[in-house]
Amino acid sequence: MTKTAITPTRAANYNEWYQKVVRAADMAELSEVRGCMILKAWGYGMWELMQRDMDRRFRETGHENYYFPLFIPLSYFEREASHVDGFAKEMAVVTHHRLVKKGGKLVPDGELEEPLVVRPTSETIIGQAMSKWIQSYRDLPLLLNQWANVVRWEMRPRLLLRTMEFLWQEGHTAHETFKEAMDETLQMLDIYATFCEDTFALPVIKGEKIPSERFPGAVNTYCIEAMMQDGRALQAGTSHYLGHGFAKAFNIQFQSRQGELEYVHTTSWGVSTRLLGALVMTHADDDGMRTPPRIAPWQIVILPILREDTDQQAVLEYCEMLRADLSLVTMDGQTLRVKVDLHDSPAADKRWSWIKKGAPLILEIGAREVEEEKVCYSRRDDLKQGKIFEERAEFLGQAGGILDSIHNRLFEDALAFQQSRMVTDITDWDAFEAYFAKEDVNGFSSGKGFVRAKWCGDEESLIKLDALGVTVRCIPFDQDGREGVCVLTGQKATQDVIFARAY
Amino acid sequence: MTKTAITPTRAANYNEWYQKVVRAADMAELSEVRGCMILKAWGYGMWELMQRDMDRRFRETGHENYYFPLFIPLSYFEREASHVDGFAKEMAVVTHHRLVKKGGKLVPDGELEEPLVVRPTSETIIGQAMSKWIQSYRDLPLLLNQWANVVRWEMRPRLLLRTMEFLWQEGHTAHETFKEAMDETLQMLDIYATFCEDTFALPVIKGEKIPSERFPGAVNTYCIEAMMQDGRALQAGTSHYLGHGFAKAFNIQFQSRQGELEYVHTTSWGVSTRLLGALVMTHADDDGMRTPPRIAPWQIVILPILREDTDQQAVLEYCEMLRADLSLVTMDGQTLRVKVDLHDSPAADKRWSWIKKGAPLILEIGAREVEEEKVCYSRRDDLKQGKIFEERAEFLGQAGGILDSIHNRLFEDALAFQQSRMVTDITDWDAFEAYFAKEDVNGFSSGKGFVRAKWCGDEESLIKLDALGVTVRCIPFDQDGREGVCVLTGQKATQDVIFARAY
Repeated sequence: MTKTAITPTRAANYNEWYQKVVRAADMAELSEVRGCMILKAWGYGMWELMQRDMDRRFRETGHENYYFPLFIPLSYFEREASHVDGFAKEMAVVTHHRLVKKGGKLVPDGELEEPLVVRPTSETIIGQAMSKWIQSYRDLPLLLNQWANVVRWEMRPRLLLRTMEFLWQEGHTAHETFKEAMDETLQMLDIYATFCEDTFALPVIKGEKIPSERFPGAVNTYCIEAMMQDGRALQAGTSHYLGHGFAKAFNIQFQSRQGELEYVHTTSWGVSTRLLGALVMTHADDDGMRTPPRIAPWQIVILPILREDTDQQAVLEYCEMLRADLSLVTMDGQTLRVKVDLHDSPAADKRWSWIKKGAPLILEIGAREVEEEKVCYSRRDDLKQGKIFEERAEFLGQAGGILDSIHNRLFEDALAFQQSRMVTDITDWDAFEAYFAKEDVNGFSSGKGFVRAKWCGDEESLIKLDALGVTVRCIPFDQDGREGVCVLTGQKATQDVIFARAY
Repeated sequence: MTKTAITPTRAANYNEWYQKVVRAADMAELSEVRGCMILKAWGYGMWELMQRDMDRRFRETGHENYYFPLFIPLSYFEREASHVDGFAKEMAVVTHHRLVKKGGKLVPDGELEEPLVVRPTSETIIGQAMSKWIQSYRDLPLLLNQWANVVRWEMRPRLLLRTMEFLWQEGHTAHETFKEAMDETLQMLDIYATFCEDTFALPVIKGEKIPSERFPGAVNTYCIEAMMQDGRALQAGTSHYLGHGFAKAFNIQFQSRQGELEYVHTTSWGVSTRLLGALVMTHADDDGMRTPPRIAPWQIVILPILREDTDQQAVLEYCEMLRADLSLVTMDGQTLRVKVDLHDSPAADKRWSWIKKGAPLILEIGAREVEEEKVCYSRRDDLKQGKIFEERAEFLGQAGGILDSIHNRLFEDALAFQQSRMVTDITDWDAFEAYFAKEDVNGFSSGKGFVRAKWCGDEESLIKLDALGVTVRCIPFDQDGREGVCVLTGQKATQDVIFARAY
């Protein structure tokens, strides 16, 4: 048995392995503030790259960034009944505006007339602003996005995947017509899916949520669902068509081309730091994280091997020259992010720390490489290949291509895994129950995944799923339309849905 | 008298003029949530450019971005007495974690055992994390930065300058020695000053705060002070040497090179969205904002002039070609940000809206320009020059240089203003009192500014300033060291300080 950097392994205890990987990669940790996390440089660096990448896609489709208040007056939530029902149970409420010393202890003081809610999402406060900004059809579409922190009180936090405070982007748009709003809703879902595949190397399934799983206040909710390495689903992004709900609650009206006063159609869509959790659960292995190159804060890390009997100065100069040359190489029009790790610790320790962080390419440069004008490198996607020696000039020419192939390999591995765990031949309840019946402690080796089957659409029937801890993840967009039998009720059904356990 | 876009003018009512400019430039507005603001696309776009620019400077000096929790347990504040004294009066306190319906009304429910404070600054929570992360001198220096929202309860909000919630960056570092920590503190002040001058075209004065004006918990506080067009000072950034205060409060110790357990020396430093207020108060004129090119979300705006009798398609194509060509021009190694404004409204209205936003260069392109292969442009820094006609090819070659000269012009104007309002010949209290005695409603035309004079350092003497609403802004770094007489007490004094009214 090979020694692995992460103990326990995925196969031994998937949940513990996940927590260990996030910590070993130094991406994030739970803080002492219950349910809140600290994003460390490697994890926050990924978030920044994700922001930059998504921002470009948002701008190209006409969206502009705004920033709205953190605090929302309690009364705003009373205006949209289904919205508040969805969030009331998990709201952080500010009730006082100072601390004073009483009996030697600090206590809250200065009670507010109206409590303020720390935003769990911003439809209400942005709706309020839109109602002031929108007068005529000329002001439409209004295409906003916000990068912000949000808070949803969380009793069972899980690093990156479910934390009380998290970072996200929330797009909010207003449109003249149903068609435009629906086009926007689906366009943004497409952008999320493309982003996940092109940048995160994360294959996703696009679909619509069933009514009971919609965002509170939405008419339709669309989602992308990804499969983790234990076969569970993770909702990686959502896009909502909100109809006239918020427009009516906040009186967002406009003078139409025909001179009539009409309500706008609104949408909202978001992805969060949760996606970084999906990244780990999809790509990490028993040696730690494997970071897809487009999201790696450092794509290439150069480790100088400084033995006592070698010309250390020559090695350091060679490393610096390599860094400078590689920093001119481009991938997707952006220059590579290359670091020489000069930290004062043994090279073997540094090598393992970068393996655990998942730097895509790790170069080890000692006297031999300098002498022979070579490069010794390891690909994090395939450590089994061992160290590869290459002529320096050759390597410079190949570096962009190697990173590209690492991305492709990670994507193909994840897609193959998703396909291997997609069950499409279950058509009755007995088989369904047998499939999901036993949940291993260790989800990784359980072999469980997604069941794609017909469902009649009767939400009452979903109660059968509760005991299994399974939910309907989505109605996937690609449907064969053939008539079959509902896996829950045995009734006639034509619609395929995806069933799974989920994070 | 020329008609101006902003009423009242600076001379008529400076404060109202300021609010109007921010709104007319569509940078920000106060929200209905008391004391909170909404940053709109033009203002938030400046903030994003500022982030990008500063981030580069932070990274070049070895800092990495992290993200820490929004909520800080009340008990953390009890550990550093002077720190909590400074902030207790302005803290937003979360006391409940859900809302429930009682008698048809939503009310806070689920009281927390320990209230959480919405961060007013993060020394405490970051100190807590540092104590876990730092073991040995090998872990030092630890150089962190965070971009975040912070909340300080504010009874008299002022758009951008003083709001309850604002965006900022806060750097937090830990060092082995006093010297390293002090070097860091001063290095960051230099970076702020250079940023202000090079990017914001904002001349600043570097100095140290007097003891009573230090950050709560700091051993030394350094600042950059800028002069607004009404002669008031605005503290544009601060950098603090925190000594061992937070290290002792949060037990941040390390094994030294000699094997001893020692406390780290910490620093913190920050700038906020307040700088955008300084930008307006420094550069705007009676026609609205004048945005320095390096911080302008669009540096060049192209307005197609589409008359009914012209070949509209040809004009649009010419505009698009101009945009594409100009987008390849670089300034400081970055390609220009160029927009063709296709909004469906009259060209004259659009021209005024971009003048009010302060787009540095506004191009107006009609049939004549197309025919003659010319460009008609206006420089926002100098509208009096009127419209300038230039050969298209010539203009493409000059565009970067013109933007550069706009930056320089804005900087020189601001510097000349600052110098013209810097009074250095007041040496006694009578003259001092007479100078500051009468504060015009209209600060702009009052001719008031900064008084640079000797001060003995006796803080008791400052009480004389209260009636004038004047404070000591800083002890500027450039000192002549000559002995003179304290302007407040008549005692011997060698130290120059800067006195001013301030925002």
